[in-house]
Amino acid sequence: MTRLIEKNDDFMGDDFLLQTETAKILYHQYASKMPIVDYHNHLSAEKIAKDEGFKDITEVWLSEDHYKWRGMRANGIEEKYITGNADSYEKFEKWAETVPYTIRNPLFHWTHLELNKYFGITDLLQPSNSQAVYDKTSQILQHKTPQDLLRQANVEVVCTTDDPTDDLKYHFQIAEGDFSTKVLPTFRADNIIHIEATDFVDYIKTLSSVSGIDVIDLSSLKKALQQRVDFFDEVGCRLSDFGLTGPLVFDEFDEAMVDKVIQKRMKGEGLSVNENEQYRSCLLHNLSVLYAEKGWAQQFHLGPIRNNNSGLIASFGADAGCDSIGDYIFATQLSKFFDRLDSEHKLAKTIVYNQNPAHNEVFATMMGNFQTSEIPCKMQWGAAWWFLDQKDGIEKQLKILSNIGLLSRFIGMVTDSRSFLSFSRHEYFRRILCNEFGNDVENGEIPNDIQFLGKMVEDICYHNAVNYFKF
Amino acid sequence: MTRLIEKNDDFMGDDFLLQTETAKILYHQYASKMPIVDYHNHLSAEKIAKDEGFKDITEVWLSEDHYKWRGMRANGIEEKYITGNADSYEKFEKWAETVPYTIRNPLFHWTHLELNKYFGITDLLQPSNSQAVYDKTSQILQHKTPQDLLRQANVEVVCTTDDPTDDLKYHFQIAEGDFSTKVLPTFRADNIIHIEATDFVDYIKTLSSVSGIDVIDLSSLKKALQQRVDFFDEVGCRLSDFGLTGPLVFDEFDEAMVDKVIQKRMKGEGLSVNENEQYRSCLLHNLSVLYAEKGWAQQFHLGPIRNNNSGLIASFGADAGCDSIGDYIFATQLSKFFDRLDSEHKLAKTIVYNQNPAHNEVFATMMGNFQTSEIPCKMQWGAAWWFLDQKDGIEKQLKILSNIGLLSRFIGMVTDSRSFLSFSRHEYFRRILCNEFGNDVENGEIPNDIQFLGKMVEDICYHNAVNYFKF
Amino acid sequence: MTRLIEKNDDFMGDDFLLQTETAKILYHQYASKMPIVDYHNHLSAEKIAKDEGFKDITEVWLSEDHYKWRGMRANGIEEKYITGNADSYEKFEKWAETVPYTIRNPLFHWTHLELNKYFGITDLLQPSNSQAVYDKTSQILQHKTPQDLLRQANVEVVCTTDDPTDDLKYHFQIAEGDFSTKVLPTFRADNIIHIEATDFVDYIKTLSSVSGIDVIDLSSLKKALQQRVDFFDEVGCRLSDFGLTGPLVFDEFDEAMVDKVIQKRMKGEGLSVNENEQYRSCLLHNLSVLYAEKGWAQQFHLGPIRNNNSGLIASFGADAGCDSIGDYIFATQLSKFFDRLDSEHKLAKTIVYNQNPAHNEVFATMMGNFQTSEIPCKMQWGAAWWFLDQKDGIEKQLKILSNIGLLSRFIGMVTDSRSFLSFSRHEYFRRILCNEFGNDVENGEIPNDIQFLGKMVEDICYHNAVNYFKF
Repeated sequence: MTRLIEKNDDFMGDDFLLQTETAKILYHQYASKMPIVDYHNHLSAEKIAKDEGFKDITEVWLSEDHYKWRGMRANGIEEKYITGNADSYEKFEKWAETVPYTIRNPLFHWTHLELNKYFGITDLLQPSNSQAVYDKTSQILQHKTPQDLLRQANVEVVCTTDDPTDDLKYHFQIAEGDFSTKVLPTFRADNIIHIEATDFVDYIKTLSSVSGIDVIDLSSLKKALQQRVDFFDEVGCRLSDFGLTGPLVFDEFDEAMVDKVIQKRMKGEGLSVNENEQYRSCLLHNLSVLYAEKGWAQQFHLGPIRNNNSGLIASFGADAGCDSIGDYIFATQLSKFFDRLDSEHKLAKTIVYNQNPAHNEVFATMMGNFQTSEIPCKMQWGAAWWFLDQKDGIEKQLKILSNIGLLSRFIGMVTDSRSFLSFSRHEYFRRILCNEFGNDVENGEIPNDIQFLGKMVEDICYHNAVNYFKF
Repeated sequence: MTRLIEKNDDFMGDDFLLQTETAKILYHQYASKMPIVDYHNHLSAEKIAKDEGFKDITEVWLSEDHYKWRGMRANGIEEKYITGNADSYEKFEKWAETVPYTIRNPLFHWTHLELNKYFGITDLLQPSNSQAVYDKTSQILQHKTPQDLLRQANVEVVCTTDDPTDDLKYHFQIAEGDFSTKVLPTFRADNIIHIEATDFVDYIKTLSSVSGIDVIDLSSLKKALQQRVDFFDEVGCRLSDFGLTGPLVFDEFDEAMVDKVIQKRMKGEGLSVNENEQYRSCLLHNLSVLYAEKGWAQQFHLGPIRNNNSGLIASFGADAGCDSIGDYIFATQLSKFFDRLDSEHKLAKTIVYNQNPAHNEVFATMMGNFQTSEIPCKMQWGAAWWFLDQKDGIEKQLKILSNIGLLSRFIGMVTDSRSFLSFSRHEYFRRILCNEFGNDVENGEIPNDIQFLGKMVEDICYHNAVNYFKF
Repeated sequence: MTRLIEKNDDFMGDDFLLQTETAKILYHQYASKMPIVDYHNHLSAEKIAKDEGFKDITEVWLSEDHYKWRGMRANGIEEKYITGNADSYEKFEKWAETVPYTIRNPLFHWTHLELNKYFGITDLLQPSNSQAVYDKTSQILQHKTPQDLLRQANVEVVCTTDDPTDDLKYHFQIAEGDFSTKVLPTFRADNIIHIEATDFVDYIKTLSSVSGIDVIDLSSLKKALQQRVDFFDEVGCRLSDFGLTGPLVFDEFDEAMVDKVIQKRMKGEGLSVNENEQYRSCLLHNLSVLYAEKGWAQQFHLGPIRNNNSGLIASFGADAGCDSIGDYIFATQLSKFFDRLDSEHKLAKTIVYNQNPAHNEVFATMMGNFQTSEIPCKMQWGAAWWFLDQKDGIEKQLKILSNIGLLSRFIGMVTDSRSFLSFSRHEYFRRILCNEFGNDVENGEIPNDIQFLGKMVEDICYHNAVNYFKF
């Protein structure tokens, strides 16, 4: 089979995305040397703890990557080769068939960055080399473990995403071992907030059991949450997270009413919109207070519309790759939420990621309203997220943050990924960051002081996050 | 009269908008050779069928072009020279006076692309040459017919925009002749959806008469619509269209209720908001099902606020050039609408054009939720539309589509125009497309494989649309 | 103390931001020679009239500049050094400490443009030269007066922002003197619109006293407003302004009802949402009619969320630098408001500034719906405002205005500032404008006719505003 697409020798070489001499120096002499602090991802602590080799590249690349699934669906690939029961190589082949069609999409860059970094493969993946690439990568992966891959990528800290009821046994196990990368949990409390969920009552029962506190009302719920926060904190947790569905709901709440709402819901009854909002506002607030007291940073991932395709959800389940960018409104609620916490001196360090890029400036300016001397840029407008995690989206976030806040104090990139190969996204981000500085120097918009800029690059790639989270 | 503005020799020459060698090769060797498939415009089938010469350039350029009208109004020109009773040359003169002030607006480029392509005029239009340009173009136009202009522009397919009650006699007439360009109707069902319109009852009477089915309730309305869809299909129709005013309204509906709503409205009664929404949701859904059954593609033009200036509307009528970009919210309704159709396996191929560029990413990601193996990129996020149809808007659409979907599967440009000279907009689009690829190659973001990129350019300019619509 | 950041010799030199030869010619030979018409700012007429020297650079730079305050807060500076009781030099030192961290933020450029223009200082401000810069600038400022600074910046007209109850005595005093810069008032009627404000009743009493008309109902309020508009007009006022909080509220109103609403409110009673909206719609409309009758231009500053941080507001007061960009919806209300005025032939020349850049195209297109032959671009989409007043925001505004309207008819830049040193922002704007044209020429997108472009640059920087406002 002949090649569909040929690669020029210098394509995605050492100077990929580095268009100026300044950018090259900043990347090669500063950015690339920094360890990685990946403070938000969805890696499996279990896999890191067990540290076994992988079956093949399909397991690593295709079994959980909804980005690739969407690419394949858009390319007209049958679902059986995406999330269905086709065999491992067939799935990979369909991905290889799709890759040339992803040109200009970040999948094209990510794919080839990862093939190069982890497997030394510099060819462009396509049908003609699908079998060869499959064989070579799978062979390597059988002898590479998650810990190998983290070491190879120079990852210093990894923060996974965990339910408050998790026993964190794998985090304990890793901490007790001699693995040099810190693997820390993140307290993701979505299940506590979603009181309308059909399995909420069961969830609270699990929480009762895990915390040893029988949750029957607001007071006992608070105690149970305090217990879980204490527990996570002992294991080294430094961050919480919320992945809210729909708009942020926050209004003044009445704890007596919320108390009744919880009792009602625990009897299995449904709630009115107002009851739901009272509960949600109360819990958002109370959890934030707990985080602030621990010195944690709280994260909010706001704005997607999840699970749009009910057919896919029915056949596959959630996170099937049928999520999209929402057009919800956020500013007023966010302002009220932060202001109440701030006025009570209980506003934790906060990182907000917005999904809709039309809201970039809204979010960037909102964070600026609550900065204090506690720590530089206590309120962080987070890195370009999900559908925005490509060169254009990253550049836009960097530019707007620069214009409206202080880029110099930015805590930088996260992979937000389920894959052990995604650390290339830090390389991607760093190249783009250095290229932005290079262009600015070339255009005379910033001083040509390489040492100063190099330090700033190092700060954004590494030191700012370390100082911010105090791992 | 002296020249206001002088032209450098190479301005808008062969390499207009092509900033790199790659761009030049891609445009001249690939893009420019492709025939045009203009699958959405507002050309008059009657004019094509009758195929008579034009009175003058004012008829072709100024009698129906609300872009130029807005430009002239912004330049302080009196309405009498725009839509009023000034004579043909006076109107043209006022346009010539305005042209130099449109610099950096797409009108400046379109004007000169068209003067060059159709009349061999390479001067910049302005007061000093207004009479000469008027005379030369008008002389040529008296001997050029619509079919000449379509042939000259290498147009292979034209899809006009037609009301469901139209008898399509001119489409028949053209099909029976020997004109090599296919001229196909599009089923634009706005009048069916707008039950609140004062002339809705009359419209339904016309529909009854044309379809031979007495429309008195939902069941008869469905039959009449089926008859019209069948009829359009026989004449080669492959697309429908909706140009919705305001937000998309879609909710679960009750056909029994809708049945009563129709009966009530046919008695001339007004409807509640809820009745209106039930009707609209039901009809949107039912029409989409009919389209899916025919294998048509459905188009949605979403987001403008039409007819803002009641004075102009009173004196001139609709489409007077007082429309603007709306800030309606769409994502949740669109999701529900598509999901219901998809879950019933009745989701037609769909093209959605958004008017507000702040919604680009929302729409681009929404389409990705419903891709299937039926055809690559069955769900298309349409080309930059109306106020966005300029270099910046086109580039933005191409970039976002690339980042979020598969540009390689894009079905490309439409003129959406009422003018027989607007096919230059395909040239404009193609130059911009090739220039994007050229820049990417130069920046090392895509491989420098001209053959591969050339094929992709040809696909986007021509083959993808042909394969998608199956004319 | 060693330097944090070094400056290359050509950084921010004569050709700052001018990347092409065309840009350099346009700026140096055309733009830079134009006087400044700063038709919207918040300068103190009292200070101009009294014309006394300044205490030090802290007074001029830091006492009222919420941009710098936000920068300092984001940098982790304690509030005591921002708006607190630290001494003058301590505050300046903290600002100097912050400056290197503002790289890529407009504060970095503004700071060094102003240090150079007014003080001949070309070093980068930082801790190592903080004392020296403080001493030198403060020494100069003690001998520079507001009038000196306006003369030095070649300011021909300044329009301040004034409450309708103001006696304008300083404007009279300046006009009677021999100061060559015109200092004109602007009628900012926010206090009249905000009927819900706790001090509304007191405000209306002041209005009664100042106007000599006892305001007790709608009719007397109209008379009082007419008196104030007449008075401002006599002093040379040519503009009004509104800085609305929240969304624009405009609906059909009933004057009889509004009459009762005013009477009710004057008794100290609270109002329903509907009563408030009726009042607000009525007053917006009636004020606009008054402005139209005087031939004034009306300005609307729409979209921020003000005073988000209640702690800061409590300790400092309004305008503390805790405002951000809102995500309110505007298009439909704006359309109704303009259309009613237009249909009554009472639509004044109008300039609308939007705060949320996601609404740029919405606002730009809305203005185009109401252009008339009264004057070219009677409806102006205003310059990039507040959080958008940086290179990216200005470029975006220029591009979108070009694409959607007529840049050639744009009335250009305003400082919107409280500082006598901010006129450098006109230089900033002009450099960016010339650079845009230079890039377009280089890319072959506009003709290389320097004289034509030079005239257009002069128009945008100066003549268009002069012709539009008729000072």
